[in-house]
Amino acid sequence: MKKQQKGILVILSGFSGAGKGTIMNLLMNRYQENYALSISATTRKPREGEQEGREYFFKTREEFEKMIEKNELIEYALYVENYYGTPRAYVEKQLEAGRDVILEIEIQGARKIKAMFPDTLLLFVTPPDAGTLKERLLGRGTDEETVVLARLARACEEALGIEDYDYLVVNEVLEDCVEKVHSIIQNEHQKVNRNQEFINRIKEELKRFSEGE
Amino acid sequence: MKKQQKGILVILSGFSGAGKGTIMNLLMNRYQENYALSISATTRKPREGEQEGREYFFKTREEFEKMIEKNELIEYALYVENYYGTPRAYVEKQLEAGRDVILEIEIQGARKIKAMFPDTLLLFVTPPDAGTLKERLLGRGTDEETVVLARLARACEEALGIEDYDYLVVNEVLEDCVEKVHSIIQNEHQKVNRNQEFINRIKEELKRFSEGE
Repeated sequence: MKKQQKGILVILSGFSGAGKGTIMNLLMNRYQENYALSISATTRKPREGEQEGREYFFKTREEFEKMIEKNELIEYALYVENYYGTPRAYVEKQLEAGRDVILEIEIQGARKIKAMFPDTLLLFVTPPDAGTLKERLLGRGTDEETVVLARLARACEEALGIEDYDYLVVNEVLEDCVEKVHSIIQNEHQKVNRNQEFINRIKEELKRFSEGE
Repeated sequence: MKKQQKGILVILSGFSGAGKGTIMNLLMNRYQENYALSISATTRKPREGEQEGREYFFKTREEFEKMIEKNELIEYALYVENYYGTPRAYVEKQLEAGRDVILEIEIQGARKIKAMFPDTLLLFVTPPDAGTLKERLLGRGTDEETVVLARLARACEEALGIEDYDYLVVNEVLEDCVEKVHSIIQNEHQKVNRNQEFINRIKEELKRFSEGE
C-alpha cells in the first residue's frame, strides 16, 4: 500500500536526556529508505565541523526573517537570540514522494505543526522514570547541579504537554525503543484514514464482481 | 508499562474469505500469554467434536434470553434463527488482568461494542484486492457460484463500514499479516491515553526532583 500513500509527518519530542538524538540517528542509519530527516534552518553561527546543508542551513537574520515572511517555514522558534525553523519545501517534497519525515522538535512547535497538518503523528520519548532522567543528566558530567535542576524544571513543564501526543515511547533499552518507534510509524500507514484510495478501489471492485462481472 | 495497564479490547472484522479465523488461531498459538480469546455463547446445537466452553457456551433459547435481560452479554446477534453473543464477565475479567481480548465479530456488533467501550481497537482484515477474495471464495470449492456471488454481495455491504475501523490490515502474506496484527495491538499499549497513570507518576517525580529533592 506504501506506494499509493503520501509519507507521514512524524514529530519526535521528549525530555532533554531522554535520548531523542540517538534514536533519530539509529532510525536514519537503519531505515534510510523509509525516512527523511528534515534539516533545520538557523541563524546561529556554524560550530566547528558543521556543514551547510548537513547539520543546518545557515542563514543570516535577514534571510531567516524573509523566509518567515514568505511562509517558507512550517514552524520556527527563537532560542537564546537565534532563530531555528523547519523549511517547508523539503518536507512537502519528501511527503509527496512517500517518505516519512521525522522532525525532532519541542512541544510548542509540535502543536503549531499539528494545527497546520492534522495528520501529523506525535511521539513523546520518556525515560522509564524521573530518577533515570536525573541520573542521565548528572551522568553527562558536563553540567553543574544547578543546570541539571534547571533541565529538570524544564522537563516538569514539558510533561504538562504529554497529553497532546499520540504515543508515549519509553526509552529503557535503546534498541527496543528504536524498533518501537519504527514499528509505530510503520503501523501508522495501516490507519484506515490513510488508506482511502485503497478502500475506494476495493469497494468498486467488489461492486463489479458481486454484479456478476 | 504493561503491568499497570488494563488489557485492550480488540475487534477483528473483515470480509468472509479474508482469513480472520486463521489469523486468530495463529495469534493465539504464538502469543498465548498476551491474548485471551473470548468464547461466544450460542443457541445453535453443538456440531460433532465441539465442546462446551471450548468452541462455544451452548445455551437454550430461554437461557440465552435471560442473559440478554440481565445484561450479561456485551453484544449479541441473531443469525439463521440462532443467537450468538459475547459474555461480558469473561471479557471484563481478562481486561482487568491486563490481557488483551480479541473478538472476531462483524461490523454491527463492532459498532455496538465501540459505543459501549470507546477504547476498543477496531481492525479490519482485507485481501489485497477483490479479485483475490473472489479466487479464495471460489477456491474453497465447497460453494456454488451463486453462493460465492452472495458472499461477494455481502462483502460489498461490509465494505461500506470500513471507515468506522481504526486499522486496515491487508492479508497478502499470512505470516506478515499475523505479525502486523500483533504489532498494532502491542503498539496500542503505548498510546498516551492508555498511560495516564505512568504520566501522572513521572510528572510528580519530576516536580519533586526539580524542587531539589
